[in-house]
Amino acid sequence: MQNNKGKKVSIKEIAKICDVSVATVSRVINNNGRFSEATRIKVEKAIKKYGYTTNMAAKSLRSSHSKTIGVIVPNIDNEFFSAVVLKLEKIFFDNGYSVFICNTSQNDQKEIDYFKSLDSKLVDGIICITGRNEIPSDVIQRDIPIVCIDRKPSMDSDAYYIESDNYLGGFIATEELIKKGCKNIVILSRLKTLSPNIQRLEGYKDALKKHNIEFNQNYVVQLNNSQSNFDGANESIQRLIENNFKFDGIFATNDWRAYGALVALQKYNIPVPEKVKIVGFDGIPVSEYCYPPITTISQNKDMIAKEASTILLDLINKTNIPEKRHTVIPVELIVRETT
Amino acid sequence: MQNNKGKKVSIKEIAKICDVSVATVSRVINNNGRFSEATRIKVEKAIKKYGYTTNMAAKSLRSSHSKTIGVIVPNIDNEFFSAVVLKLEKIFFDNGYSVFICNTSQNDQKEIDYFKSLDSKLVDGIICITGRNEIPSDVIQRDIPIVCIDRKPSMDSDAYYIESDNYLGGFIATEELIKKGCKNIVILSRLKTLSPNIQRLEGYKDALKKHNIEFNQNYVVQLNNSQSNFDGANESIQRLIENNFKFDGIFATNDWRAYGALVALQKYNIPVPEKVKIVGFDGIPVSEYCYPPITTISQNKDMIAKEASTILLDLINKTNIPEKRHTVIPVELIVRETT
Repeated sequence: MQNNKGKKVSIKEIAKICDVSVATVSRVINNNGRFSEATRIKVEKAIKKYGYTTNMAAKSLRSSHSKTIGVIVPNIDNEFFSAVVLKLEKIFFDNGYSVFICNTSQNDQKEIDYFKSLDSKLVDGIICITGRNEIPSDVIQRDIPIVCIDRKPSMDSDAYYIESDNYLGGFIATEELIKKGCKNIVILSRLKTLSPNIQRLEGYKDALKKHNIEFNQNYVVQLNNSQSNFDGANESIQRLIENNFKFDGIFATNDWRAYGALVALQKYNIPVPEKVKIVGFDGIPVSEYCYPPITTISQNKDMIAKEASTILLDLINKTNIPEKRHTVIPVELIVRETT
Repeated sequence: MQNNKGKKVSIKEIAKICDVSVATVSRVINNNGRFSEATRIKVEKAIKKYGYTTNMAAKSLRSSHSKTIGVIVPNIDNEFFSAVVLKLEKIFFDNGYSVFICNTSQNDQKEIDYFKSLDSKLVDGIICITGRNEIPSDVIQRDIPIVCIDRKPSMDSDAYYIESDNYLGGFIATEELIKKGCKNIVILSRLKTLSPNIQRLEGYKDALKKHNIEFNQNYVVQLNNSQSNFDGANESIQRLIENNFKFDGIFATNDWRAYGALVALQKYNIPVPEKVKIVGFDGIPVSEYCYPPITTISQNKDMIAKEASTILLDLINKTNIPEKRHTVIPVELIVRETT
């Protein structure tokens, strides 16, 4: 019986070596009273000598907390999501939790499978940034808390939900363009059924209304789902230019789309912001680093991660049950050189 | 006894309801012979009626495979890493494995904790893209396979290791600049102790040597670790310009550094590629989408993910034990508008 990774000693073998019961070894391991000091020394010595290690999964079957959190995200290569996930990871880790990130690639079956998988690994809670409008919480067997970010869970769900003020973001993005003189504003969007996109479009419409500009469906450009945000926006704007479509402002509902639009305008030597102005959304690095840097609606990733993790930890620890199920995080207009 | 998330039935209760032993219920669940058809129907009916579910973690304590993989990554907001991780996730998922991604933020203690945590969750294997030069495999209690990507494990480790041909990448990047007429080539690097950086620098030196250009330590610019790649490169190049440092080529050891350098040159109206030429490394979106698009050394993310996952699955299934412990993946020069 060696301390060898191939041959592991069991708790039974430790008990036999020490001539005590398995229950006694377990009590020593869990420091759960009812054993003599001599027994403790004997058992701890044997555990050390034979390299016995308690199995965390076995432990978590008995105790209620596994000190792990699952984070479900549609795409970690989306910089907004990856920034929020990294901030969540840091907060949970600082609170003693390991974080398992699961990437669903916006695939419904994968999302369901990851919910099941995280459940079976006995995570204490789940943060879900879903690609769907419904979270498949019914596949979870245990009663663990779930907090959603960005995408609204279905109406009858009782999950907690944190989102940016997408409506206000759409409104102030559009108003910034109007204030700088734009009259014909294209909105570049995608996946029109997702709640953030619906709300940003509503904000756009209401800003037009406030400034007596008539809403025109032709100015709502829906990108192709099969293309990247950059490519989709780039090609859409090139097509508008080639068709002599009249526009002087672009509200792109994310920053990669804004950048794709900017590069399309540059290709046709249309000066930005002189002839066409652009506002993006998210506040991710590309908007800051591209040339000229893009005016954008910044989502507060720190506050989103802070709120979501605080609520989840409160629910796990049952210390302070948050009353409000829906939290809206303010957004901010960052004026740069495209408006 | 309801099918209610708060009150779950146990296997014992199912056995009692059906008037059979716990072992019989277990045999029905695992389809492990030795029960009558009548018993199967009775037990399956009760399982369905009372919503009993087998616990995967409990199951994996008994069986050897949990059908889960852990992927350890230094930073998912690095587009090269996130692209490789997404490809790995897809391959493993298609092979029936759930993937838990753990982000270490290049923090040594976190990396150790995640190794332990994944081990305790009984993953079947680990892919490690480490921020360290040594993988802490000694903290793992079980004998599970580990495959490293990008960073070389310590010499005495027997882990499998996949990397791009970093030496060749450094060589052909530098040679591209020399062939286009550069004589004074800055190399922008960081974390000089990491194996990929050492090899890229060696390739740079050997290309200079081949073309009879003397290596000069002043042209090796080490970026500050506290800054982002973009900011560090941007400020370093601005400083060189302000100090009238003579250079006509930049080999940036990643694409964000290349882009930071490009923006610095644009700020001072130094035309690229006429006065200064740039080659990046990685082949991530920013190099393609920025203006002008940047010549780069593209790492083959598909092949890296394919090789790493194939080796790990072979090791898990013990089907085909790969002899070669070190696999080098070819890189490719993509000529764009900065050279």
